[in-house]
Amino acid sequence: MQMIVHLGENSYPITIEEGAIHHIQDTIDTHRKIAIIADDKVPDQWVNIVADQCENAFVLRFPAGEGSKCFTQFEALLEQLADQEMTRKDAIIAIGGGVTGDLSGFVAASYMRGIDFYNIPTTVLSQVDSSVGGKVAIDMGSYKNIVGAFWQPKAVIIDPDVLTTLSSRQVNNGLVEALKTGLIQDPVLVDLFEKETLDLPQIITRSIDVKRKVVEADEKEAGLRKILNFGHTIGHAIESAYGLDTYLHGECVAMGMLFFIEDKALKDRVLKIYDRLDLPKVPDYSIDQLMHYIAHDKKSNRNSVTVVKVKSAGSYILEDLSFDQIRSRLERGPYEE
Amino acid sequence: MQMIVHLGENSYPITIEEGAIHHIQDTIDTHRKIAIIADDKVPDQWVNIVADQCENAFVLRFPAGEGSKCFTQFEALLEQLADQEMTRKDAIIAIGGGVTGDLSGFVAASYMRGIDFYNIPTTVLSQVDSSVGGKVAIDMGSYKNIVGAFWQPKAVIIDPDVLTTLSSRQVNNGLVEALKTGLIQDPVLVDLFEKETLDLPQIITRSIDVKRKVVEADEKEAGLRKILNFGHTIGHAIESAYGLDTYLHGECVAMGMLFFIEDKALKDRVLKIYDRLDLPKVPDYSIDQLMHYIAHDKKSNRNSVTVVKVKSAGSYILEDLSFDQIRSRLERGPYEE
Ligand SMILES: NC(=O)c1ccc[n+]([C@@H]2O[C@H](COP(=O)([O-])OP(=O)(O)OC[C@H]3O[C@@H](n4cnc5c(N)ncnc54)[C@H](O)[C@@H]3O)[C@@H](O)[C@H]2O)c1
Ligand SMILES: NC(=O)c1ccc[n+]([C@@H]2O[C@H](COP(=O)([O-])OP(=O)(O)OC[C@H]3O[C@@H](n4cnc5c(N)ncnc54)[C@H](O)[C@@H]3O)[C@@H](O)[C@H]2O)c1
Ligand SMILES: [Zn+2]
Ligand SMILES: [Zn+2]
Repeated sequence: MQMIVHLGENSYPITIEEGAIHHIQDTIDTHRKIAIIADDKVPDQWVNIVADQCENAFVLRFPAGEGSKCFTQFEALLEQLADQEMTRKDAIIAIGGGVTGDLSGFVAASYMRGIDFYNIPTTVLSQVDSSVGGKVAIDMGSYKNIVGAFWQPKAVIIDPDVLTTLSSRQVNNGLVEALKTGLIQDPVLVDLFEKETLDLPQIITRSIDVKRKVVEADEKEAGLRKILNFGHTIGHAIESAYGLDTYLHGECVAMGMLFFIEDKALKDRVLKIYDRLDLPKVPDYSIDQLMHYIAHDKKSNRNSVTVVKVKSAGSYILEDLSFDQIRSRLERGPYEE
Repeated sequence: MQMIVHLGENSYPITIEEGAIHHIQDTIDTHRKIAIIADDKVPDQWVNIVADQCENAFVLRFPAGEGSKCFTQFEALLEQLADQEMTRKDAIIAIGGGVTGDLSGFVAASYMRGIDFYNIPTTVLSQVDSSVGGKVAIDMGSYKNIVGAFWQPKAVIIDPDVLTTLSSRQVNNGLVEALKTGLIQDPVLVDLFEKETLDLPQIITRSIDVKRKVVEADEKEAGLRKILNFGHTIGHAIESAYGLDTYLHGECVAMGMLFFIEDKALKDRVLKIYDRLDLPKVPDYSIDQLMHYIAHDKKSNRNSVTVVKVKSAGSYILEDLSFDQIRSRLERGPYEE
């Protein structure tokens, strides 16, 4: 199936289909020079399928991991594009997870002030979340995604088949973002997590559809898009406190969401889903440390943070909490109201 | 006086007025954190006037010169913004020439995916040319302006008084771009260069008005904006061949334009203007070297380059020339037809 993200002249199609990476020409103009960018752990088999369909492509690999969302890799990729004499009419295809998409997208946004960018996400996280919305970025020291652009892809191709090579931990990690989307906007999507077998293509499709609508309403993150931050205020702090060696991003978000699900029955449902997905529930955290990162992470000058709360599946509440209120929420722990 | 650059939601005002830097609040919201960025040769007196009008500003200086349009300075400035806890609601004011504007503009475009950017150009070149149009960038090795963005300022403040501290060579260098603008679009502007005294405010105003219209018609440089490249095909090659220690950018453009003014009488007028402005006319060039840079500089895959020609003041012709045709044009020298 195909969806269109409606953003005026920045509109683009998302294809979601098993086998879609075998016919990229449906949405990508491959008759030009194409830089295919992937980190070095994205399996060759997927990269080759894409490369083989291009007339004039070259593949650029960089070391896998969040650490590559940095100036050094940004510059190295840009230099390789120039060495290959890429012009403004040429294009980049990213194939990989969120790290590959975020880094390559910022490269595409910046090379010659912006060239065409295509995204073929290959992790659940990137399929349900990072590939849609046009947010591209690199990190700077401990500041995540602080340098970047809004640069919409020209097309996104999602092929659930590529997930066959992904570890189950990575699959479950990405599913947290889909569950998040359901909790704030789509009760049917939450139900899907309780079915006997997980219907991945279905979960991916519904999740993207929610994200698409939110992005359409708020392309540049001026307002509504905040709701996608559900679970992320505390989640990001946990991520910063532990580093990504202990927990993956989705796992941190999972722990973060529990603090702001304000209905006992719903929280019980979510906890069962966490069991099924082998997700952590409570970080063994120092409150002072988490508070340090929450203050550091804030996006405005005020001494408060807007948090997203959920009382019933599919609907959200936005609330401004002072740092003191957040601290006391952390002190009560995720199980207490 | 004030002009508006009409670019839909990216529209912005340009103030052109002697003394304008003394009341920046007319167009800049100064009630927030502001990073004032300037290279270390922009005179303190101008920087201080701006800083003193801000509630909560800090000044970031970087080494003057084209060499600072690089990844190292880009990163260093971004790090300082983060260290100062700048948020998405805060702003950058660039005060200086084209180097300061291009570098700070790209920093503003990238910090947290884009924050407000104000430009106070203080060289003739930046007042008549680089401050209008939203093109911001850094260089990469010998590739000029190859990494950047289109990031429109929120306002531009042009105060001819700040030019009192600028060397006459720098003044004349910038005037070349104004003369260029006249040659392709505004015969009255060309006439201004033949008046007994040069009316700088008038020249700046007319020049910007031309640039404004071209940018309005072609924000992202998809077509018309090419005409601003008059003199630049060969000019850039001269610049690359000599490096900026010998000639300034405008001086290279001056030499480059002569090859493509295709009317004897007009060329004679222009040569007299060059005498008046102490501009070089003929580079002592190796044709092979210039051809190398022209091939390297091209913006498409084709083996030809679109050049702008002028037959009568105020109107242009676009022509595709093969590399062979350009070579033979160089061989004939700037004075021959
Ligand atoms: N831009 C956005 O809107 C947005 C949203 C959420 C997250 N993100 C970013 O996404 C990043 C995390 O993305 P991620 O979780 O996909 O991590 P990732 O890109 O690091 O991928 C995880 C690992 O899986 C490997 N991999 C990818 N596809 C595979 C496949 N099909 N089979 C086997 N291995 C495969 C990768 O090589 C990598 O080692 C973070 O940097 C985060 O900031 C961005
Ligand atoms: N963005 C665009 O559309 C565009 C267009 C044309 C040129 N440019 C860029 O502009 C740059 C050249 O700009 P420039 O010619 O202004 O050079 P510049 O910024 O290097 O300024 C020249 C020198 O003058 C000094 N200076 C600035 N204002 C002064 C003042 N009022 N008094 C005394 N000294 C002063 C500067 O410190 C510098 O040393 C190049 O990098 C070029 O690529 C950009
Ligand atoms: Zn997330
Ligand atoms: Zn120029």
